[in-house]
Amino acid sequence: MHRRAVTDRRRLLAAVVCAISFSTAVASDPLPSWNDGTNKQRIVDFVASVTSKESRWHVPVAERIATFDNDGTLWSEYPIYFPVQFAVDLTSQLVVKHPELRTRQPFQAALENDLKSLTNIDGADLLTLISRTHGDMTVREFRSQVSRWLSVARHPRFDRPYTDLVFQPMLELLDYLRANKFKIYIVSGGDIEFMRVWATRIYGVPPEQIIGSRLKTRLVKRDGKPALLRLPEFEFFNNAEGKPISIRKFIGRRPIAAFGNSDGDLQMLQWATATDGKRLALIVRHTDRKREWSYDRKANIGHLDKALDEAARQKWLVVDMKRDWKVVYPFQSKR
Amino acid sequence: MHRRAVTDRRRLLAAVVCAISFSTAVASDPLPSWNDGTNKQRIVDFVASVTSKESRWHVPVAERIATFDNDGTLWSEYPIYFPVQFAVDLTSQLVVKHPELRTRQPFQAALENDLKSLTNIDGADLLTLISRTHGDMTVREFRSQVSRWLSVARHPRFDRPYTDLVFQPMLELLDYLRANKFKIYIVSGGDIEFMRVWATRIYGVPPEQIIGSRLKTRLVKRDGKPALLRLPEFEFFNNAEGKPISIRKFIGRRPIAAFGNSDGDLQMLQWATATDGKRLALIVRHTDRKREWSYDRKANIGHLDKALDEAARQKWLVVDMKRDWKVVYPFQSKR
Repeated sequence: MHRRAVTDRRRLLAAVVCAISFSTAVASDPLPSWNDGTNKQRIVDFVASVTSKESRWHVPVAERIATFDNDGTLWSEYPIYFPVQFAVDLTSQLVVKHPELRTRQPFQAALENDLKSLTNIDGADLLTLISRTHGDMTVREFRSQVSRWLSVARHPRFDRPYTDLVFQPMLELLDYLRANKFKIYIVSGGDIEFMRVWATRIYGVPPEQIIGSRLKTRLVKRDGKPALLRLPEFEFFNNAEGKPISIRKFIGRRPIAAFGNSDGDLQMLQWATATDGKRLALIVRHTDRKREWSYDRKANIGHLDKALDEAARQKWLVVDMKRDWKVVYPFQSKR
Repeated sequence: MHRRAVTDRRRLLAAVVCAISFSTAVASDPLPSWNDGTNKQRIVDFVASVTSKESRWHVPVAERIATFDNDGTLWSEYPIYFPVQFAVDLTSQLVVKHPELRTRQPFQAALENDLKSLTNIDGADLLTLISRTHGDMTVREFRSQVSRWLSVARHPRFDRPYTDLVFQPMLELLDYLRANKFKIYIVSGGDIEFMRVWATRIYGVPPEQIIGSRLKTRLVKRDGKPALLRLPEFEFFNNAEGKPISIRKFIGRRPIAAFGNSDGDLQMLQWATATDGKRLALIVRHTDRKREWSYDRKANIGHLDKALDEAARQKWLVVDMKRDWKVVYPFQSKR
């Protein structure tokens, strides 16, 4: 009887200890939507090695810069890049002022929402579509266009606002890095003012840490006050080679961690890892046809080919969405 | 006797109280190099009114953006703008590679350090001089040129490094604003990479908060690694209308306080004050021939004319260096 009581007490104690450890482990998992495995471990190890004061790879807080691509890295990009869908949806407004564009490409394809043409759109046409639909308005007017679009546009597959299609595991990663005093920058091919309207709220990244493609801008007067007029002309397309150039210009420091998903991010990842010290380059690979999409080398949208080869050579971290992520979107329940 | 002792004790107490109040007042003066008066009071009142939680003009920390011009506002600019002196000093190196420039303007004037010509240089020649001497090298190479220049160049009047010619009262103002959780940006007409080499150290402003004029930049390979090559061609001249444009691009927020000294800052000050709420626009007026220089409406360097008229109309704060500042440079003793 005495012995039984001791054993019971021991079992109870063991159970309590177990429960406490378990709840601590759960509570302290900074990346709950990531499956345990090598990839998750590499992220955690990297953060530990640059933040621990005892580490030989320790990086001072001011130098903990992390740069994230947006389309395909922080949110989805199918059936077409969401910023392009926004430009497509603005076209009906543009042709009211410029009816001659109705029968001209790429505007006709945009008016017909012809996804096949739009997916195969060439670089010059893409820039024309974006600059013409985004330009000829003040920054303030453009921002209200973005807000309006965000409140009415629905993603065709999920019938939800586009901002619902952000990746839950990446949101956790942003939080995890911030908790470790990283300064997060978005370095997107999307328009800088398009991004700033919603990315501040959705990702918690302030406007001064959002870098994107830029239109030429002119200072004008509106109702006697200064205003910034966006011209229908690109100043800078923030993609591929453009990303390291913008990073140097806006940040003036080299990131120690960079996150992308396509060949448009290759140069940014090379730039971040081209110095000594512990560096993290991470590629999100779209492998989950069921929950998201599956594509890489042959894709027109989110083309991932050279960057995948370089990832293999440089041993960059390639995230497999299907294997590594418990959930993709915040609205999907966990498996 | 008893009465005398009480009086003595009272006197002693009064003296102690006085001494304590005095030392507290001195210790708590955030702007010790500023003479007491309306201008100093207006700065302190502005800061109190946007930071006090009870104030109807309270501004959240994230929106406390202050933008500072550099040349003439944070450091001197005579006999010629220091960034131009840097370009002048680089010319002898440039003509080794390009001897044909020796007899061409503005290079010949630069080689002869012909201050009269250089002071009257027109805009196009100025951009040519800067872009040719600053371009055709990587960011890294350019940064070492700046470091080398800073370590050898001496200001002709004071025989000191140029970075000694910063304004002590303005350094205190930077500290004071930072202590009140302002985020300080430098918005200079000087080259962004020239500024970043030393302004981080001298002003304590991190590189990502330094905005300046930019050269076109290209991503290249050097020894198998990516490098950023600055081309001998302007991308953006960050002056006058350029300042609000850059502020929107880099910061994405409107400053609530802006500091300048010339017509090149007029648009920035107008931009900062064109909204409702308490705003501070401050102009440093060079009135002290003895300790610094005295100039404004007719000057070629630091031309202050339209902005002075606008300051009168808008009741901006015009700092009179001679009257408002106890010291100008950190190395000068107080009057």
